[in-house]
Parts: sequence; C-alpha cells; structure tokens
Amino acid sequence: MSARILENTHIVLVATTHPGNIGAAARAMKTMGMHSLRLVRPKIFPGAEVTARAAGADDVLARTRVVDSLPAAVADCGLVLASSARTRGLAWPEMTPAQGVTHIMAAALAGTQVAVVFGNERSGLSNEELESCQGAIRIPTADGYSSLNLAAAVQVICYELRKQACAGTVDAVEPEAPAATGAQLELLYRHLEQCLVDIGFYDPAKPMLLMRRLKRLFNRAQLDANEYNILRGILAAAQQTARDAGRITGSNEGRGESS
Amino acid sequence: MSARILENTHIVLVATTHPGNIGAAARAMKTMGMHSLRLVRPKIFPGAEVTARAAGADDVLARTRVVDSLPAAVADCGLVLASSARTRGLAWPEMTPAQGVTHIMAAALAGTQVAVVFGNERSGLSNEELESCQGAIRIPTADGYSSLNLAAAVQVICYELRKQACAGTVDAVEPEAPAATGAQLELLYRHLEQCLVDIGFYDPAKPMLLMRRLKRLFNRAQLDANEYNILRGILAAAQQTARDAGRITGSNEGRGESS
Repeated sequence: MSARILENTHIVLVATTHPGNIGAAARAMKTMGMHSLRLVRPKIFPGAEVTARAAGADDVLARTRVVDSLPAAVADCGLVLASSARTRGLAWPEMTPAQGVTHIMAAALAGTQVAVVFGNERSGLSNEELESCQGAIRIPTADGYSSLNLAAAVQVICYELRKQACAGTVDAVEPEAPAATGAQLELLYRHLEQCLVDIGFYDPAKPMLLMRRLKRLFNRAQLDANEYNILRGILAAAQQTARDAGRITGSNEGRGESS
Repeated sequence: MSARILENTHIVLVATTHPGNIGAAARAMKTMGMHSLRLVRPKIFPGAEVTARAAGADDVLARTRVVDSLPAAVADCGLVLASSARTRGLAWPEMTPAQGVTHIMAAALAGTQVAVVFGNERSGLSNEELESCQGAIRIPTADGYSSLNLAAAVQVICYELRKQACAGTVDAVEPEAPAATGAQLELLYRHLEQCLVDIGFYDPAKPMLLMRRLKRLFNRAQLDANEYNILRGILAAAQQTARDAGRITGSNEGRGESS
C-alpha cells in the first residue's frame, strides 16, 4: 500500500540554482523510499556536485526528468501542491505538512498522480507557478527566520509522507471519477477565459485578478474528470449562445483541443 | 510554553567530519526556533564552509560550545537521546521521532535540560557514546537505503520537536474575504440553474444529477464573498448574451433577489 503512495508522488524542483541542492533532494527522497524527481529549468544538471551530494541516490538521478515549464512537469498530475514559505497576496489554502500529506495519501491511494512543487532557493515560486497548484504546504518555522534549505524542506515533506504512508491507517475512498489532470485544467482555463470574453464579461486588455481568482477557486475544488466535462460543456453552450447573438463569428473559438 | 521546550533542548554533534554539515545543522535548528548547539571534537570548526552553509544562523554558531567528550557535552542534561540509524548489539529502547519528542517535551516542560545526540557521518555513535544516552530515536527510512544526511536528520528531529511544541498554536491565516453565506449559495445555485436553462445546456424536465454535481463542486470549494460576486456576475453576463440571442424575453429571469 505505502509503495503505491510513494510511487504516485513526484517531487518537482523549479529553477533550482545550486546543483548540490538537487543531489541532496534526491538523497532525501531516496531515504524515504521515493524515486520520482522532476526538474524545471535547473541551472545545472547533471553535474559533479549533484552526484556528490546525492551520496548514492544515483538511481533517482538517472530517472530524473528535466522539462521546460511547470505545466509540463505536472501535466499527468491530478493533485499539485506547492511547498511555499509564504503565499503572497492571494490567500491560498495553506496546509501543514501533515495536513498536506493526508490529501496526498488520499489522492495517491486512489491512483492519482501527485506532485509537490518546490521553488527557487531565493525567490520561491512565482505567482504564475502558484497558479498551477491547488494548495500550498507551509512548513512551520520560527518567527523571523524561515530560511529552510531547499533539500531540508524536501526532507521534511518526504519524511512526513513516509511517516503517514507507513502508518497504514488511511483507507482508500474509491473516487467516482479520476481527478482532472493538469493538462485538462490548462485547457479548461483557456476555454473559460475565451468564453468570458465571448459573453462580454472579461476584457483581456484589463486583466486584473479575475483569471487568477477563478483558477484558484477551481484548483481548490480539485475537479474530477466528470466535473471537468460538465464545465467544458457549459462553456461550449455559453459560446454557442454568444454566436447566436452575433457576438462571435468563428466556430469553437478558444475551445482549444478537445479533451 | 513552546519557547521553554526549545530553550531547554540541545543538539549535540559528535565528531562531525564535514564542516558544511555543522553549518546546515545550525540553519536547520534556527528555522525551527532552536539555538543551542554543542560540538564534540568537530574536525573543523569554525570555518568558512560552516558559515556559508549556516546561511544566516550566525547567532547559533556564535553560541555553539565545543567540548572534548560526549559526557562533557551532556553533563547538565537530565534526558539524553541518541539519534541513530541502528543500535547495534545493545537493545536500546528505540523510538520514532514523534515518540522521542513526546519524551523530550515532558522533560523540557518540567525544566529538565535535554540533549539529542548525532554521531559521525560515516560511523555514527560508538557503543561507548551510546552508553551516555537513555534511549535512541530512529528516523524510519527506506529498506536498503538509510543514508540520511546528518543535517537532514537534525532537520527532521527539530521539525518534529517544533511541530509538537507548537501544536494548537498555529496562527490562523486572515481570509481575504468572508465566506459566502448559505443564503448567498442558495441564490447562486438558483441563478446558475436558470442560466444553464437560458443558454440551452440544461432541461429541468430531465434534471439528472447535474445540479447536484455542480452544487457539490462549489460547496467543496468553500466560496468566499468575492468569488460569489464574480460568479454571479458571470451568470448575469451569460444571461444577457442569451437575451441578445433572442432566447429569453424577460429581464433578470431567475436572477432571484440581488444579494
């Protein structure tokens, strides 16, 4: 059982500056029985310092995937949680590591692929990157000194994950439908934005916080595949209405590829 | 309360080989609100690599005591626990980090000085050193790869300590807006249903599970008042589009009272 949780959970490091931290993160993962590491635009990888600090976790490094963007890293994931020291501006659902791991366990046990995302050492995750996430885990730190090392943060999350995964107390709830994937959510948000333009609610020239707020709302809800299909259907119907009203001329504008 | 626990608990590193690990341990401690580090025969201390990896935990380094033997390091301590990957030979009472921290909390709250002792990176603690301890904390690791980095082990123990010391005192996140009320949700769902009829997506004569699914989705998201207003605005815009398309004739149909 615990193996499934650990197999279905991926650690994603975004724009990591220090190669030593990548190696140390791989080592931290392997000590806790985790093996799937994904890197978004690492400054240096692979490299001698990566390997030195990995201290024998070479199999994790050998399997590591390197991609260009966070959406690409989490495209197959139905639950994406940020590890973040602060969530700046927008009030994200913020969880302790134990709470976050409870969510992860429930999802991973149901077969959903899960990602935990860690930002750059200095700047963390950008607001745009946070928008690819459905919630944030904050490791509680001392007042006035929240400077957790990146690999140390990975260690704490993986420790908490193994701790709960091996406690053997979570019962799997069979989901009604699989979780919507990151790729589906991307399509949904593009479709939603175009639809809001079509019905005259939204002007991309004055973007404000609207799309960010809506993404946050739907991310928080953790849509399943049925709900995804319903929402796509509603958007298509609203666009057809706009077409009938003579507001748009093309067909399927902004619909993106079908799912 | 938590301050007392953290003040009365000392981290002891024995015969540490890599100066970077001492710095990283100091950083790990400080992020968790701990400040008392004691070193037994460190190979290198102080040093540039210690300071670099401490990343601002200079106050911890400045207060660090260096001694010649483990008994000297723990002379004032009433509870001494080893952090150990294996306990070789001697049948020690072996605890998980959470169990160990429960003992530490009870002792520290009673005013007892507590030490958690970490051995050399390669060889751990000798049997003689283990005899200065009253029990051992073992961080559970994956079968076949127990190679926890020294500072990562310090991080996990200090994390668990802070977690229990601060239990129940986590600060609440100030919400951006109050939660949407039950009355608002009722209005929203009525408005949503009418809007779906207006855009031709939904036929109340064949209700199926659609509205139930959508309510469940939005209930799960726990809307706040801002999000409620945004969604109501989108629905009104979609209805206006339907009106322009000649699909409905009245004004504000199904809109319910304004909020």
